[in-house]
Amino acid sequence: MKILVVGASGTIGKAITKILEADNEIIRAGRNGADVSVDITSVDSIKTMYEKVGKLDAIVNAAGRAQFSPLAELTPELNEIGITSKLKGQINLVLLGQDYLNDNGSFTLTTGVMMDDPIRQGASAAMANGGVKAFVKSASIEMPRGIRINCVSPNAVQESWGRLRDYFQGFEAVPVSRVALAFKKSVYGAQTGQNYEVY
Amino acid sequence: MKILVVGASGTIGKAITKILEADNEIIRAGRNGADVSVDITSVDSIKTMYEKVGKLDAIVNAAGRAQFSPLAELTPELNEIGITSKLKGQINLVLLGQDYLNDNGSFTLTTGVMMDDPIRQGASAAMANGGVKAFVKSASIEMPRGIRINCVSPNAVQESWGRLRDYFQGFEAVPVSRVALAFKKSVYGAQTGQNYEVY
Repeated sequence: MKILVVGASGTIGKAITKILEADNEIIRAGRNGADVSVDITSVDSIKTMYEKVGKLDAIVNAAGRAQFSPLAELTPELNEIGITSKLKGQINLVLLGQDYLNDNGSFTLTTGVMMDDPIRQGASAAMANGGVKAFVKSASIEMPRGIRINCVSPNAVQESWGRLRDYFQGFEAVPVSRVALAFKKSVYGAQTGQNYEVY
Repeated sequence: MKILVVGASGTIGKAITKILEADNEIIRAGRNGADVSVDITSVDSIKTMYEKVGKLDAIVNAAGRAQFSPLAELTPELNEIGITSKLKGQINLVLLGQDYLNDNGSFTLTTGVMMDDPIRQGASAAMANGGVKAFVKSASIEMPRGIRINCVSPNAVQESWGRLRDYFQGFEAVPVSRVALAFKKSVYGAQTGQNYEVY
């Protein structure tokens, strides 16, 4: 398969690439992508990326950020970061990428545990994750030509625990290799509309 | 209680007002609000509304729209309608309204059945609903001074069935009075972080 991995240089993106690259052609995308550059917060940038890479069998996204702030300090402006990046960035990858997927291709997006098991300062990220999850479930029933769409909801990963431990006290971090397996399940499997929890 | 109802002139807003007005002071808000005008897609308009109405015991929102389009025709621009109105409009009512709620006050927002039971053309609305639901669950753990936050997820309502029946074939529409009860439960009850399904 020819697989586009957006956010390929991140902790999760690297693990996805590693688990898929043996049997597939991987196109690494990101802000400074090894193969193609994309800023998912820009519709024009997403369009340019798809024009460059052409037809694909799978589109996988591990990019997208959101602001972590105490709710009392979360302004509409700070909330906009998660809206623009983690929410709209991912959804626009789908809306603009539908025609670039071959028959029976797939999208796999990223959500996250804090929508199900909330943490302090996580409301904006939870919002973005919940929006993506519901979009995936709904969009799956309208995908043409056997195209599937799923998302993966990772727990905090062990490889980022130094940065995350203060936010996720008491959480049982998971190895990023387990998260990558869920992406592999989505790409190779036959299910659609799923949110694969890796908790 | 002094209760602000945003979207008070809509089908659901009117039913909420009716069920709450016997025992409470209701302030009716909306684009052409009977008591105060507000455009929830505008941060400035929300701020002006709160400055006008002052301290409140409950903030209830029944406003917010999203585009219904086949997925193949859903552009980033059309998806923006739901982002700006049903998603950000509701969340900004919370972010900007926190300081206007009295101790032990409450927010109640609106989601909708299509995030759980998807329909064709409903992906953008589902996205907005899922984002609001996850935000509510997460924000509830950070609310200060005993303030609660919930949302109500209505099925299609019988009173709008003429307009909705083509989208919701096979759904069992509910009377709007049942939806209003869920809002009453949220305002008078003690639960927080809930998404009350009226299915």
